[in-house]
Amino acid sequence: MSSTLLSRRDLRFLLYEWLDVCRLTERPRYAEHSRETFDDVLDLAERLAVEHFAPHNRAADTSEPTVEGGRVRMIPQVKAALDMFARTGLLAASMDESVGGMQLPHVVSAAAFGFLQAANVGTSAYPFLTLGNANLLLAHGSAEQVDTYVRPMVQGRFFGTMCLSEPQAGSSLADITTRAEPQDDGTYRLFGTKMWISGGDHELAENIVHLVLARIPGGPPGVKGISLFVVPKILVGPDGALGARNDVTLVGLNHKMGYRGTTNTLLNFGEGVHRPDGRPGAVGHLVGPAHQGLAQMFHMMNEARVGVGAGATALGYTGYLKSLAYARQRPQGRPVTDKDPTAPQVPIVAHTDVRRMLLAQKSYVEGALALVLYCGRLLDEERTAPDPADRERAHLLLDMLTPIAKSWPSQWCLAANDLAIQVHGGYGYTRDYDVEQHWRDNRLNPIHEGTHGIQALDLLGRKATMRDGAALAVLLETIRASVSRAWKADGEAAELAARLGAAVDRIAATTRRLWAGGDPALALANAGVYLEAVGHVVVAWMWLEQLLAVDAAPSDADPDFYAGKRQAARYFFRYELPRTTAWFDLLDSLDRTTLEMRDEWF
Amino acid sequence: MSSTLLSRRDLRFLLYEWLDVCRLTERPRYAEHSRETFDDVLDLAERLAVEHFAPHNRAADTSEPTVEGGRVRMIPQVKAALDMFARTGLLAASMDESVGGMQLPHVVSAAAFGFLQAANVGTSAYPFLTLGNANLLLAHGSAEQVDTYVRPMVQGRFFGTMCLSEPQAGSSLADITTRAEPQDDGTYRLFGTKMWISGGDHELAENIVHLVLARIPGGPPGVKGISLFVVPKILVGPDGALGARNDVTLVGLNHKMGYRGTTNTLLNFGEGVHRPDGRPGAVGHLVGPAHQGLAQMFHMMNEARVGVGAGATALGYTGYLKSLAYARQRPQGRPVTDKDPTAPQVPIVAHTDVRRMLLAQKSYVEGALALVLYCGRLLDEERTAPDPADRERAHLLLDMLTPIAKSWPSQWCLAANDLAIQVHGGYGYTRDYDVEQHWRDNRLNPIHEGTHGIQALDLLGRKATMRDGAALAVLLETIRASVSRAWKADGEAAELAARLGAAVDRIAATTRRLWAGGDPALALANAGVYLEAVGHVVVAWMWLEQLLAVDAAPSDADPDFYAGKRQAARYFFRYELPRTTAWFDLLDSLDRTTLEMRDEWF
Repeated sequence: MSSTLLSRRDLRFLLYEWLDVCRLTERPRYAEHSRETFDDVLDLAERLAVEHFAPHNRAADTSEPTVEGGRVRMIPQVKAALDMFARTGLLAASMDESVGGMQLPHVVSAAAFGFLQAANVGTSAYPFLTLGNANLLLAHGSAEQVDTYVRPMVQGRFFGTMCLSEPQAGSSLADITTRAEPQDDGTYRLFGTKMWISGGDHELAENIVHLVLARIPGGPPGVKGISLFVVPKILVGPDGALGARNDVTLVGLNHKMGYRGTTNTLLNFGEGVHRPDGRPGAVGHLVGPAHQGLAQMFHMMNEARVGVGAGATALGYTGYLKSLAYARQRPQGRPVTDKDPTAPQVPIVAHTDVRRMLLAQKSYVEGALALVLYCGRLLDEERTAPDPADRERAHLLLDMLTPIAKSWPSQWCLAANDLAIQVHGGYGYTRDYDVEQHWRDNRLNPIHEGTHGIQALDLLGRKATMRDGAALAVLLETIRASVSRAWKADGEAAELAARLGAAVDRIAATTRRLWAGGDPALALANAGVYLEAVGHVVVAWMWLEQLLAVDAAPSDADPDFYAGKRQAARYFFRYELPRTTAWFDLLDSLDRTTLEMRDEWF
Repeated sequence: MSSTLLSRRDLRFLLYEWLDVCRLTERPRYAEHSRETFDDVLDLAERLAVEHFAPHNRAADTSEPTVEGGRVRMIPQVKAALDMFARTGLLAASMDESVGGMQLPHVVSAAAFGFLQAANVGTSAYPFLTLGNANLLLAHGSAEQVDTYVRPMVQGRFFGTMCLSEPQAGSSLADITTRAEPQDDGTYRLFGTKMWISGGDHELAENIVHLVLARIPGGPPGVKGISLFVVPKILVGPDGALGARNDVTLVGLNHKMGYRGTTNTLLNFGEGVHRPDGRPGAVGHLVGPAHQGLAQMFHMMNEARVGVGAGATALGYTGYLKSLAYARQRPQGRPVTDKDPTAPQVPIVAHTDVRRMLLAQKSYVEGALALVLYCGRLLDEERTAPDPADRERAHLLLDMLTPIAKSWPSQWCLAANDLAIQVHGGYGYTRDYDVEQHWRDNRLNPIHEGTHGIQALDLLGRKATMRDGAALAVLLETIRASVSRAWKADGEAAELAARLGAAVDRIAATTRRLWAGGDPALALANAGVYLEAVGHVVVAWMWLEQLLAVDAAPSDADPDFYAGKRQAARYFFRYELPRTTAWFDLLDSLDRTTLEMRDEWF
């Protein structure tokens, strides 16, 4: 099967030739697996994506969900696709066999899910949210909560949500006010309003499992007084039977500019419309200990953030493949050196400016895919590496890379979608082609699960400094190890490695310089620029790594594919990495422009 | 009146304090005018924009035109607004009094039109197209054509279009195939299909005047065999009376992702559906001499291209003002140095990352507005400067600046709209706020009237080399004159001038280097990067110019406004101009990455 969603050839390269994923099967957790089972899963996901997700991508955009008589209506293709998805069992691809999972490596399931995101990001959001919810309960919930909620989610009978934001508290979760009042029977009653809840209401599943952040009265203020609750839309009895409707009310749907297939809701908890036992309040069950909600949520949020980056990558990737296909078949104009107007027109892929736009896309989307799969591989390492020191190292590296894996693809694969439109010219601006929808859909990714600004503070303010800079040190060491390998390899890789080595030195020096003054306001004033600079260096590293894998390939195999990888690596090092000089210079100057700007001067 | 469309304070600064527009009233053409009449026109345009254009901006987006029974239907507010517009006489603001115009300077009418574009770019496209059409006929049409078509356009009775592209010929106009067969009576019959025709059909006016590029059989191939024709939708008799329907047929509407209020059509000429005298073919009248169509069209297209830049600027500007207003009223989070979660939240304008996004927008949109008004001022200079040498100089400078004034705002004011969404967070991603529509609308500007790639070839391949580099020389001299003034001014302006001077030297050196080898394919391989680099230097120049005007202002007047201008100038020189180093370095390396990339490697 060959689709314009993701490149199977590229996935083979990244998974098998670069990340050596087959070696994971030497570990007990993956012993049942082999390259064949990995490929089968990729086949399954691609077929599902092509046959059941892609065909209604545009319809879900133009006919978004509506509310009629309090019930959410949507086009029937969404449920049909999700029913097919449930049958594949892919939701539990990386989960333990004990809960019905396949125990696949994360890196493989991330690649498989990429097809669904590329095909239809709106429909695939429902299982993604459910997966995040299920993983959080698996990590922090009781055995009973796992039985009651996770198993039906794995079976596709229940869907899940994450209820964090409130109308007055988005980026600032410290300010949520939803309260959870303890009851004599050990349950809680929740009262409050949650905003931006994706998948917050629908009739795609028998039940919806909300994971809700709320405050238990009397707890500490701020983030230290937030607890996590599981709040089902319909109460579930001890035998798993569905009972009364819980006191969770759909207030309305948000009307977005993209991701329109995913219901995005405003929910009231404890409004009193549904009173399961005559009393108001949404019945909730505490997950783990009280006041640990934010930490628990963040445990899951790292995965969710890499998942956002993966979704952004998938949209960028399919846009790239579609614009490439267009450029190959659209005749227009002649080479600048051909002055004969009677000569036949050439396909636009022949024009250097179009090739620049395609190479830029290729370097962004393949670089981003390498990064998110590398993070998936780290997750497997963190959980299954035989040596605990390797696990710790993977954990730190993943912590450091998470804000980058979330933000960099969100920014640059959106830029790729912009270029995909441009390659299409006026046609790309119409709704007859897919690329404009990808661009609109992708615009959400720099916002949800923590904006760029939040990721920047996380990277520079928390990750780069935590444990005396241990996570940053691991990142720099790991990149330098690649640089050393490339030096030894000699040739072009050594040349690029020298440039990457210099850029890594700048990360180290700039981070020290920013924090040397002990003034957090000054250090963080340009955190967004720091995020961009470090992100570009990290993706340059991903390209050097790919180049090394190309060097290791048999010289006679698939020469066009490897030549393309080499050229994209060159492109990134020639056109992209040099951008970082200006960013590091700005950071090193401890620039105060934004600090000194006053509101009344705007 | 204070709106969030454009800043009147900024316009006062740019027009009166910087561009010294009042001195134009010393010239005979503008002798009837004064600052008061200029302000009256700005008042009129702003009120019209606020009261009649802005209110249906969203409705025109959500309820786009449809075709029913061959007739175009649209929401009635569009016609109501355009009828009001016609009553103001603004269409002819800068035209001669002899054709019913106001003889206002172009720079003033450009500022006035900015309000309409900011308020509703879809509705304002109809008069803009009509204006371009009328100006082209005024420049190249016969007296009879002016009487028959231009006068009714000035009165608002006829609307105009530009019919250039065909389905197989967009960027490559050399390949148009529409043919115009000469008739015994001196008229022509046109046969062919025109694509992307904005305003191509509607019932907003009594008639639609199409200006059509077509080939007279037997003419030379390529661009040298293209002629320009006026083809009315309804034939007009010698007495001005409307006659039979001409053979121009609406094939269908294009469904765009933005600019949805403007009908965008596929038109057939000479399909035979309407046969005004029993014979097929759309009746057309040659404008000017045969085979000069492209040159005539380009005469107008320079204005149209600066107009595209102005429209992009207007959308960027209103997005900036709206995100600023939002940032001032939205409480969220606390300063990074405040760890007390019980302290009240601060408005997000207090966060440095939000200030960075607002300063970036301010530096883009005010820089772009300065550029397009500077171009408007050059147009006035080109047409009315007492000294012919000054006219020639203005002509050359405007020629050189046109691709930049088209492309730079299209790219960076779109980036401003992206930041405006980001400042709004999740709310900005919904259709409840204006900024997402501005972003979608603005995405057309890098495409229509010549894509970025086309502008880049125009700048580096034609403008920078024409007349042995005379236009480039004028640009560099003019920027250096500003640099010299700033050096004399001393202080901060001198410091920024030093940086700008270095960047100007790089333009000169890089242009020489690119063309030194005599290899156009190599010279033009990175024309897009050249366009970006020169564009950023030009806008830095606009900021230095503004800083000089700030220095010249009375020290006690409006200190917040001037402090804001200073800070935005600093922002551009600190965050933006340094980007150019990497671009010039790439160009100087005569990089062959895109030249050497092969189709089969993708």
